[in-house]
Amino acid sequence: MALTRRDLFRATAASAAIRLARPAFAQAETKPVRYCVVGLGRIAGHYLEGSRSSRYTRITALVSGHRQKAEKLAATYKIPAANIYSYENYDAIAQNKDIDAAIVCLPNSMHAEYTIRAARAGKHVLCEKPMATSVADAQAMIDACRQANKKLMIAYRCHYEPLHLKAVSMLREGRIGTVHTIESAFGFDIAPGEWRLNRKLAGGGPLMDVGIYCLNACRYLTGEEPAGLKGNMTVVGNDPRFQEVEEHVAWTMRFPSGVVANCQCTYGVGMNGYFHVRGSKGELRMEPAFNYDGLRLAARIEGEAPIQEASRERDPAQFPRETDHLAECIAGDKTPKSSGEEGLRDMRLMTEIYQSCGRA
Amino acid sequence: MALTRRDLFRATAASAAIRLARPAFAQAETKPVRYCVVGLGRIAGHYLEGSRSSRYTRITALVSGHRQKAEKLAATYKIPAANIYSYENYDAIAQNKDIDAAIVCLPNSMHAEYTIRAARAGKHVLCEKPMATSVADAQAMIDACRQANKKLMIAYRCHYEPLHLKAVSMLREGRIGTVHTIESAFGFDIAPGEWRLNRKLAGGGPLMDVGIYCLNACRYLTGEEPAGLKGNMTVVGNDPRFQEVEEHVAWTMRFPSGVVANCQCTYGVGMNGYFHVRGSKGELRMEPAFNYDGLRLAARIEGEAPIQEASRERDPAQFPRETDHLAECIAGDKTPKSSGEEGLRDMRLMTEIYQSCGRA
Repeated sequence: MALTRRDLFRATAASAAIRLARPAFAQAETKPVRYCVVGLGRIAGHYLEGSRSSRYTRITALVSGHRQKAEKLAATYKIPAANIYSYENYDAIAQNKDIDAAIVCLPNSMHAEYTIRAARAGKHVLCEKPMATSVADAQAMIDACRQANKKLMIAYRCHYEPLHLKAVSMLREGRIGTVHTIESAFGFDIAPGEWRLNRKLAGGGPLMDVGIYCLNACRYLTGEEPAGLKGNMTVVGNDPRFQEVEEHVAWTMRFPSGVVANCQCTYGVGMNGYFHVRGSKGELRMEPAFNYDGLRLAARIEGEAPIQEASRERDPAQFPRETDHLAECIAGDKTPKSSGEEGLRDMRLMTEIYQSCGRA
Repeated sequence: MALTRRDLFRATAASAAIRLARPAFAQAETKPVRYCVVGLGRIAGHYLEGSRSSRYTRITALVSGHRQKAEKLAATYKIPAANIYSYENYDAIAQNKDIDAAIVCLPNSMHAEYTIRAARAGKHVLCEKPMATSVADAQAMIDACRQANKKLMIAYRCHYEPLHLKAVSMLREGRIGTVHTIESAFGFDIAPGEWRLNRKLAGGGPLMDVGIYCLNACRYLTGEEPAGLKGNMTVVGNDPRFQEVEEHVAWTMRFPSGVVANCQCTYGVGMNGYFHVRGSKGELRMEPAFNYDGLRLAARIEGEAPIQEASRERDPAQFPRETDHLAECIAGDKTPKSSGEEGLRDMRLMTEIYQSCGRA
């Protein structure tokens, strides 16, 4: 959990040493953070475009294996050509005073290496989800950032998205009573040839990529950690796309309070991301829940008129919210709400799901 | 699977002996079947009321532990008071020529005994679901009916309900392409003191009572038998209702074609019964799916206008369809579509789910 301002005030009131050593967060002035975007695939485009409307986000460098592509983007976003790096000379970002942090947008299996190299280069890291492709890699990333005394944030967009935050507050306030059950699903019909279908690059199939939204949502919706994760993993027919990773994963889990959750994810068919929470006094559904925009929240609460709310934001609004949050954490010396430890928890749980599915 | 007329014609064409021994179904005249309703709880009321608008269903006898209640219902439905039996003199139905078959509407754990006693009394049986509370009991019921050369049908309403049949045909015709995933749930907020909360009477909680609809739907929607049934079972808080049976069950299963299914059932909160099937060319959702009336089917198919269909039937229309089906099976010497073997399959699968949930 991230510290709230109030938490920090309490902490500073309690400890004069801390108060003297570091200014309280409310007094810290957030400065723009100068980011280096590592990997120029689709997701990088959202960060680049999002930086235009951000408060504390500047993109000052690019890392890519495709120099031409990087130069084109650099021109569009007014990034000096001198700040374009390759994967080979990436470590030289250490000497670049115009870079405070790296945004790691590479295929999953490269997250660990490029996060660790960034930390060693003295940069903070915002890393895309899934954090890594193994628990060991995730732990190594946390360790490297801790040793370098740099922040590590995992890019869980929904932790910062207003409609998700509203859903979470409604649940915490007991608006639908005691929560009992959750259903969630997310998926899409994947194009052949995507790196996501390559086990070595992706580390797994839809569970790592889209199922993680459902898993993570069940955790922030309940505020609890699940146990008993068990599932099934299949491929329909002999679909040549799924030689290396699974097509579908369905799993269930239970939470300490007694909540049960069912989740499903797929690369085989379109599956509008959603979650549906049922409680003792009503129910709350978000669909689409995990898209870049167009989110919709609906609730039916006993004795109240139906609630319907739609996000009016447009993509890429969710991205600068993440990069600005990291900027605030750097200025206030806070742990990001979606920390490395948060990513590690999902990594452990996904590993448990795969094990229960019998994956080697 | 029930034999279709065409199957029966083929069978009779292939075997002169069978043709001589039994008239082909198409030639058999269906006669009204005279039923004895065993157990006068809520479900019995639906059968009684439904018989008024049936084609081949007559209710001519009642079995109850409450003589007064039975007399009142007998008067309402014009059943001779002489045809009221108690649980003690139930076996005397053997001597009553006005009874062809029994409808067993008792608590789950009594299904086996009263089905077997009916078979031994020379009566056909329509038994409510779940068929029994153990695989052994379910097998004993099948054996007893086979030995007595009597039909055994399990009351799976949805096997005969037009909107379910339409959903199944749409799937078989490939209207939504190849089926990939199914989600289904059903539940309600149970009143304290119900016999369903007594493990000895009910045999289990919501899985036996409402989860069975989801399980059975996944089987008829795919036309396949599932494997890998794994789940979680919980109680929220220290709810005193759930001393003996579970509150929630969530499970997943996989089918030979690669379809995965997620199901959830509860006695803790209202959960409109539904199923949602996703395929390569669209999706199909039925909600409410398992109620006595008001069912709604919606489909979204690539390149077609959205399909929305609502059942205009009113409760108890689903009940005489079951009792009339058994009458046709008796006349045509057919195996009911929802046979004892069908009930036994669900019994085995529910046992597997409970085992995976760690139930003793």
